[in-house]
Amino acid sequence: MAERTVRTKNIGLRGIAVADTKISYIDGERGVLIYRGYRIEDLAHNSTFPETAFLLLYENLPTPEQLAGFEKELRAASHLPSFIVDSMKEWPKNAHPMDALQAAVPLLAMADPELFDESRQANLRKAVRLMARVPAVVAAWHRVRQGLDVLPPDESLSHAANFLWQTFGRVPDSEAARVMDVCLILHADHTFNASTFACREVASTRAHMYAGVAAGVGALSGELHGGANARVMEMLQKIVQDGVTDIRGWVRDRLERKERIMGMGHAVYKTMDPRAKILKRLAFDLGEKAGQRIWPDLTQAIEEAAMAELSARGKTNIQPNVDFYSASVYHILGFPGDLMTCIFAASRIAGWCAHIIEEKYGDAQGKPALYRPQAEYVGDYCGKLDCEYVPPEKRRMASTTG
Amino acid sequence: MAERTVRTKNIGLRGIAVADTKISYIDGERGVLIYRGYRIEDLAHNSTFPETAFLLLYENLPTPEQLAGFEKELRAASHLPSFIVDSMKEWPKNAHPMDALQAAVPLLAMADPELFDESRQANLRKAVRLMARVPAVVAAWHRVRQGLDVLPPDESLSHAANFLWQTFGRVPDSEAARVMDVCLILHADHTFNASTFACREVASTRAHMYAGVAAGVGALSGELHGGANARVMEMLQKIVQDGVTDIRGWVRDRLERKERIMGMGHAVYKTMDPRAKILKRLAFDLGEKAGQRIWPDLTQAIEEAAMAELSARGKTNIQPNVDFYSASVYHILGFPGDLMTCIFAASRIAGWCAHIIEEKYGDAQGKPALYRPQAEYVGDYCGKLDCEYVPPEKRRMASTTG
Repeated sequence: MAERTVRTKNIGLRGIAVADTKISYIDGERGVLIYRGYRIEDLAHNSTFPETAFLLLYENLPTPEQLAGFEKELRAASHLPSFIVDSMKEWPKNAHPMDALQAAVPLLAMADPELFDESRQANLRKAVRLMARVPAVVAAWHRVRQGLDVLPPDESLSHAANFLWQTFGRVPDSEAARVMDVCLILHADHTFNASTFACREVASTRAHMYAGVAAGVGALSGELHGGANARVMEMLQKIVQDGVTDIRGWVRDRLERKERIMGMGHAVYKTMDPRAKILKRLAFDLGEKAGQRIWPDLTQAIEEAAMAELSARGKTNIQPNVDFYSASVYHILGFPGDLMTCIFAASRIAGWCAHIIEEKYGDAQGKPALYRPQAEYVGDYCGKLDCEYVPPEKRRMASTTG
Repeated sequence: MAERTVRTKNIGLRGIAVADTKISYIDGERGVLIYRGYRIEDLAHNSTFPETAFLLLYENLPTPEQLAGFEKELRAASHLPSFIVDSMKEWPKNAHPMDALQAAVPLLAMADPELFDESRQANLRKAVRLMARVPAVVAAWHRVRQGLDVLPPDESLSHAANFLWQTFGRVPDSEAARVMDVCLILHADHTFNASTFACREVASTRAHMYAGVAAGVGALSGELHGGANARVMEMLQKIVQDGVTDIRGWVRDRLERKERIMGMGHAVYKTMDPRAKILKRLAFDLGEKAGQRIWPDLTQAIEEAAMAELSARGKTNIQPNVDFYSASVYHILGFPGDLMTCIFAASRIAGWCAHIIEEKYGDAQGKPALYRPQAEYVGDYCGKLDCEYVPPEKRRMASTTG
């Protein structure tokens, strides 16, 4: 029987390599993110979300014919089965969109004609359906909760523009559509982050792809992961609401209370997240045009104050992450705060599916195995091999209560 | 940039301790399973599911007053919110019960008045609601998919008897109720199995308890985890259907085709699973009484043949696990095969909730941290630091197709 000790190694699995992967790579020291060999900056500048999703799924950038075929498949899959919308109409209108999305993913499973076909080709087709339908679910719930009709996809629009159309019922201008597209590229994959690891972990039991994706949605909802972008926006709005003008003082107070600056710091990056640099530029461009410079300006003021205060405390590792400027971008695009993590999901679905396929077919490792770690037992054993059951009437009152 | 190598260490995290825990302990060599200090045999013999669930959640067996209070809380929480049943009525009748359960868990979240209260006390109350409602969801979906009315809980019945009542619409006899209760005790926890690890992983992002539980349901559905009991039953039914009489030959053929004998072998136990021993006895007792000895008899014949054949191949590690005899037990109790993994969930919900609370509050470790492992990048980099984006029209046709 284990000794009662407090163990500190392996906490959070930091630095423990759990698998090989061919999908993406991060150099946290240099601030480099690569999808299938390509730098994120290169893809953000040149690619589109469908093209990047193809790259993640199929390992190579598509030819023009392949891309046209893939976009056609995405469009064909983008109609939501009507029972899902009918089901949503029964849900409480104040349900959080991430809960709605997590509930909807198993409903999408129910609608998949190839659900239990575990061939690679069938899983690639499931991935396309998920990439088409996750944004459709997000848009549909946002409409349903406002008592509005769910909008059908507009097949003349790009994937990103259609997402904005289905959410807001307005065809976006080309700049908004391109910003949305870049955001979807930037969030599409990020190696073994908590949600992707959850997807892979579930897939390792040979559960179907949707079961894994629903786990990913759950992990993404946490404030230490995708939920952070909503928390950044709350932070910005609170500062404006409270009329704070001394940002440096506000940051100092927060650090002294040991509170985190939402959107700063990352488990892997020790320098500025390369995605944050791109999002910062987008936030300023979009803010300028929309007359809403207040959000990127405020975010930048927090960044500068935090960098100065953290640096004075010897912490230069804590820098803006992907959520820091994305909050402003999404806000200016018109998304309410509680929908922001869902946008992340509408992008990360590409990476989740690619990772589930890699996990299922062992693309980058010899033999996939069920994730089944160990734990150190530091609990009771009554000073001997085990405790002995005592009937209820003979028990002493325990310190904890029911 | 990483070298292209195939790594074998850490696969499936076997033998890697990822956390401390005070909840349960397995000695795989000796076939010992302990919950909070108590041997599983002791609990199966003496305890009830509510009492065992209390033990898992609160670290101690309850006093009579605490147990009465806990059972009252469970009963009070056992009514399903009507919007969940109304929502289920929209789902395809052929939806798999595990997909229905995974969809229902986020709906239960929507109905929880304390969803975003992250105090320990609020999470303990959420755990009680989940333990009451997961079996209610399983029973409700089984009724809805048959076009039958959903039954309200019968507060005069025990937790286990009520589960049988709500599922089948018949009050079970005391033996069936006790067998159900023992099954719920046996499956209630099992250290860091794949579903529990998924729950903890999601909780480590600070996502709410329901988000973690939905991930656990996904992981449990896989055939390498909870899905195995349904596969055992399929295997038994196929043998009967095919009129196989030479079980030893059947086992030999299967092993020669490198196919697994469903329900045999375990990631942790290297001897007979202590739960399997108890379930074997229950299967024979119940089979005898119900005139259905065929199922435990056949299972035992497979066990003996497999042990002999495996032993002849030098494999003595592969022995019956918890799913091997539970399939017969559930079948004789009247459950269809596709509901069997849901019974597992209706029990494991106790362990999942206890583990999520331990993860959130660091009960057994200094400081919980987001699970964020590393991976080895063995993918493309075009022979240099990274690849360069080439416009679609200049791309060569890749070997993979869209």
